[in-house]
Amino acid sequence: MRTMFASAISLLSCAMAFAPATQAEEGMWTFDNFPSARVKAIYGFAPDKAWLDRLQKASTRLEGGCSGSVVSKAGLVLTNHHCVADCLQSLSSAANDLTEKGYLAATRKDEKICPGFEVSILQSIEDVTDRVKRATAELAPSEVNARRRSEMATIEHEACGDDRTKRCEVVTLYRGGQYKLYRYDRYDDVRLVFAPEQQAAYFGGDPDNFNFPRYDFDMSVLRLYKDNKPAAFANPLQLDPAGAKEGDLVFVSGHPGSTSRLMTVAQLGFERDYFLPWRIEYLAQLRGSLLTQSTKGEEEARQALDALNGVENSVKVYIGERGALVEPDFFATKVAEEKKLRDALAKSSKLRAKYGDPFSDIERIIEIEKPLWMPYQMLEVRFGGGSVLLGDARKLVRAAAELAKPENQRMPEYTPSRMPSLERGLLAVAPVHPTLEQLEIEFWLNKTREYLGPDNPAVKTLFGKQSAAEIAQQIVSSSQLADPAVRRKLWENPAALAASTDAAIVLARRIDDAAREARSEYDQLVTGPLSVASAKIAGLRFDIMGDDVYPDATFTLRLSYGAIKGWKDPVHGQVPAFTYARGLWERATGAFPFNLGANWVGARSKVNPATQMNLVSTNDIIGGNSGSPMVDRQGRIVGLVFDGNIHSLGGAFGFDPALNRTVAVASPIIFEGLRKVYGADALADELEGK
Amino acid sequence: MRTMFASAISLLSCAMAFAPATQAEEGMWTFDNFPSARVKAIYGFAPDKAWLDRLQKASTRLEGGCSGSVVSKAGLVLTNHHCVADCLQSLSSAANDLTEKGYLAATRKDEKICPGFEVSILQSIEDVTDRVKRATAELAPSEVNARRRSEMATIEHEACGDDRTKRCEVVTLYRGGQYKLYRYDRYDDVRLVFAPEQQAAYFGGDPDNFNFPRYDFDMSVLRLYKDNKPAAFANPLQLDPAGAKEGDLVFVSGHPGSTSRLMTVAQLGFERDYFLPWRIEYLAQLRGSLLTQSTKGEEEARQALDALNGVENSVKVYIGERGALVEPDFFATKVAEEKKLRDALAKSSKLRAKYGDPFSDIERIIEIEKPLWMPYQMLEVRFGGGSVLLGDARKLVRAAAELAKPENQRMPEYTPSRMPSLERGLLAVAPVHPTLEQLEIEFWLNKTREYLGPDNPAVKTLFGKQSAAEIAQQIVSSSQLADPAVRRKLWENPAALAASTDAAIVLARRIDDAAREARSEYDQLVTGPLSVASAKIAGLRFDIMGDDVYPDATFTLRLSYGAIKGWKDPVHGQVPAFTYARGLWERATGAFPFNLGANWVGARSKVNPATQMNLVSTNDIIGGNSGSPMVDRQGRIVGLVFDGNIHSLGGAFGFDPALNRTVAVASPIIFEGLRKVYGADALADELEGK
Repeated sequence: MRTMFASAISLLSCAMAFAPATQAEEGMWTFDNFPSARVKAIYGFAPDKAWLDRLQKASTRLEGGCSGSVVSKAGLVLTNHHCVADCLQSLSSAANDLTEKGYLAATRKDEKICPGFEVSILQSIEDVTDRVKRATAELAPSEVNARRRSEMATIEHEACGDDRTKRCEVVTLYRGGQYKLYRYDRYDDVRLVFAPEQQAAYFGGDPDNFNFPRYDFDMSVLRLYKDNKPAAFANPLQLDPAGAKEGDLVFVSGHPGSTSRLMTVAQLGFERDYFLPWRIEYLAQLRGSLLTQSTKGEEEARQALDALNGVENSVKVYIGERGALVEPDFFATKVAEEKKLRDALAKSSKLRAKYGDPFSDIERIIEIEKPLWMPYQMLEVRFGGGSVLLGDARKLVRAAAELAKPENQRMPEYTPSRMPSLERGLLAVAPVHPTLEQLEIEFWLNKTREYLGPDNPAVKTLFGKQSAAEIAQQIVSSSQLADPAVRRKLWENPAALAASTDAAIVLARRIDDAAREARSEYDQLVTGPLSVASAKIAGLRFDIMGDDVYPDATFTLRLSYGAIKGWKDPVHGQVPAFTYARGLWERATGAFPFNLGANWVGARSKVNPATQMNLVSTNDIIGGNSGSPMVDRQGRIVGLVFDGNIHSLGGAFGFDPALNRTVAVASPIIFEGLRKVYGADALADELEGK
Repeated sequence: MRTMFASAISLLSCAMAFAPATQAEEGMWTFDNFPSARVKAIYGFAPDKAWLDRLQKASTRLEGGCSGSVVSKAGLVLTNHHCVADCLQSLSSAANDLTEKGYLAATRKDEKICPGFEVSILQSIEDVTDRVKRATAELAPSEVNARRRSEMATIEHEACGDDRTKRCEVVTLYRGGQYKLYRYDRYDDVRLVFAPEQQAAYFGGDPDNFNFPRYDFDMSVLRLYKDNKPAAFANPLQLDPAGAKEGDLVFVSGHPGSTSRLMTVAQLGFERDYFLPWRIEYLAQLRGSLLTQSTKGEEEARQALDALNGVENSVKVYIGERGALVEPDFFATKVAEEKKLRDALAKSSKLRAKYGDPFSDIERIIEIEKPLWMPYQMLEVRFGGGSVLLGDARKLVRAAAELAKPENQRMPEYTPSRMPSLERGLLAVAPVHPTLEQLEIEFWLNKTREYLGPDNPAVKTLFGKQSAAEIAQQIVSSSQLADPAVRRKLWENPAALAASTDAAIVLARRIDDAAREARSEYDQLVTGPLSVASAKIAGLRFDIMGDDVYPDATFTLRLSYGAIKGWKDPVHGQVPAFTYARGLWERATGAFPFNLGANWVGARSKVNPATQMNLVSTNDIIGGNSGSPMVDRQGRIVGLVFDGNIHSLGGAFGFDPALNRTVAVASPIIFEGLRKVYGADALADELEGK
């Protein structure tokens, strides 16, 4: 899988129980509520506070949507190749394609800044639930969302001030059951040290994505800088060149992006019947466009590649998620689980007095959501369809309006704690790809018209008398926003922005009222009321089950435990836990996507064929965990997580320990590859702590 | 809508009742079971046998998937522009694009043969149910399908012999409840007389497809030839230049392609959760590919256009169908309807002895179908993904094998009654579009690998050591099958075929065993047993409801009745029954797809703005009805059916008279357009019977 992870449920059977709340191996636990006693009972080893602290402070979040770990005292960060795809694309040109060729910095001064990249490392967690809940206690559900966001922004600003080396975020856990202040160290000078050629990292391409056995060298190395010098870390993780063996207890520390395991049946029905089918249709068409765009020529292919890989990954994830939800047995399990909570509520007048009937509330909210979600998606969430020009134009237009307001009335992405990242992303020096921009803008405009209809007022505002192709062409050929200096000028000078006639700015400005209205209606009628009802359900769960329950994933640091172990596949039979280097050459046909990476062609005699290459484990992960370290009980890295198996695709909604597997690059191939294939002995030495 | 029609159910509410079996206006009735008494009760007019006979023998089936009508004594056929899109594309070249420009034959000798086109006119219907059922009476369900097909082929051959001017088909009605022999007159010299430029026919493009108000001049005129002379018809239909008015009773006579209204709940669940989501995902990706292909250049766009229009139409149809099935109220209606049948069965030991429990049988068959349907689809049904080269290669390879077998052991498409059409299609002189072929072959190969997996044996046989792009490139650059003379040689000479090393032939041959196996497994385990169970349910329906029930659509001649009438739309409010010419200029923006057809630019002053342009009626239709005549009680054509409204998209599964509407070109604009815009007075005179 690529960036968007997924994990953990059988498409054929599901054994989720109500009590105990979680299966063995299930759970993306917060570091402040890790079930050490349970791990001890199964594996005879309980991580203690020091062990957890060390792992936490070496676990990195890549703000683009990945995980990683600090692996040297001089700030090396180990992550996946696909987690630095954006950086490689930004640093590439038609004449020098780092995605295709890979990159190895010969010396420290050759380490290249990844434009816009940021890394965060969690330092502390503080419970602010009471304060957040107090702020919204007396409000109508439609007013809750705005008020809560404002309170959260205030807490964040109080905690971090204007210190750009820190990041403070109030995190919503258990869908509103808890609010916690997460304090991070923030690194915004992140440099590329090593990445292999993409074909080595992504051997087997989309056909093998989410499959196993697998043979991917999906690794890369970054370095964190501070004041233009490598950042120093006293206690980095260390890679184990020997690797682990089958059955070993392993932990995965990382940032799973999003799960929906605590959604109600009404919410799951909406995902199954509306949201996921729509995403699949939208992304499938985009996939076709990008694939055919790539046949136009080498340069078109290069510009489209990163977007294409992301889209193909997402399509597969969403198809798997929908597939899980239409399995009658699986859905019946979710219905039964909810029924037990509803029954408990029905039996207790005390619980009813405390919570009302939040399940029915959510059923009603979903009906209200049906006419609102599509305008919100197309005009607000997906505005611009991935176009960098339109995305930057919106940020500029919005920032000018929002920064003129009092802090606590701004949209959350323009509150003080978010400004350093926003500014850095906006002003980063990275190329804009004109052929990709044309495709993305045109695609988004046409799909917006398709979904909202040609007679929708916002659509008429967007199109005027032009076609989507003409509008896109005008923006791509005339907008000056590709120039960072122009963006900086407009960012720093609201008057210049107000006077701008740049085509991208003009479009963003033209549609802004309609987009804000779609968002505000959605927030007031859906997001706010949903959070009120969800918080009640979370309270009900705590009352009944105590804290033996983990929150849905929120792209915040989590720890999962499991063992290195194959599985018995319903179609393919027993699947082994490890693959070995020899298998790479056996699977290679020479034809894309089963061709070897260029550096591996002719390297067969140099690489020990018995080297562990990829492995699977029973850890519970999902998209966002890409790049996570897999450590053994000594805290040594024995694997680099980069995927889940095909059965894990329904993991957004539940977990099946029999079939769900995490897929990782085994630590031995990292050293074997770096030393024998890439001649990167100095880097390998640094990773080995030599 | 385009070719694939759909009709007839509210997405918001559904009022299907159990008894009477059909709503007012509901029904695609066979001509031998038309409910004249019911029409008389509502509208005071009952079509008699002479009225029905005349309409039947002037109703034409275009074998490509459309309907039409004979409208002059010299064999003119009126149909839609989109029904002749294939012909226009075949007759076009880069230098002379008839799709873009339209065509008007100045004299009869300028009327151009549409390559491969065939028209059939139904002459008689004969019940052969007993004979077909007797042939399979003692067989196991897995053997039924093959034996029945063989019996049907024998009946057809007995009825038509080798007469190429006739077509005989045994039609399966009520999902196996009845079998009827349909005898047609067959016309295989079909010539293009008139087609407008596509933009006039398809103004508003995909955004307006299935919408109303509408402003499309979606008409064309063909002429049937016999022995190189215009075919003579004593009693053609006649177009009414004055048109109809709101509230008028109208009939639509045509060939609705396929409905699933008699499917069981288990079958509908499979459509909703498996089949339709898959088609949408597949076609959405293909849509993206074709759209981006069209941005490569004018010639690529020209080659892709017809395929693109078809794909866009299908995506919209399937999304609408899935949307209907996920409406809880709609599905509950289907469940309730089935429950009444199941209750009747449970209450009567006599019915149980006669039918067993066919509903549970189908539930079990659907589970068996789940691992079988995808190999069957990708290797057999969708083989080649639309590629003409691969399609022809398969026909050649299969025909050689099948024609060597006894008649009654052949696959049905190679039985004697099918051979004239097969041969004519295969040997027709029509261009092959290399850039489109490359796209289609590559697309189909990659999707086959995606769905079946890279390790599937059939996939390995298909790919070998090559990529999809390489395989496609090899076929497109080297296959000689684009040359009709080469196809004829291989068709007539099995030895030459056996020796052929043509790349398309080689691929078709290589995968044939696997494809046959997928088909045979599906036929034996799914199609056959399903037909046995469905026939039992049909029998149960007849026992309970008599013949007050119409069969699912099967691309055979049907008659529906209704009235010209707008509707109250849940989103847009009251929608009028008619649009008028003036509205075309009001809606035009100048930007595709809302630009005027070239011939209509500057024609505003010539056209009477008050001319009826398009209209809606309450007739029950679906894809395949495109081109159907809409006639009044005098049998005069007052409209040319070309679409359904957006609410009709769930009509595959049910009908809602409140919201479902047929969309037609009103007869007055046909004359106004031909005379004032196209200067086609001679044609208009012939259509007017002058």
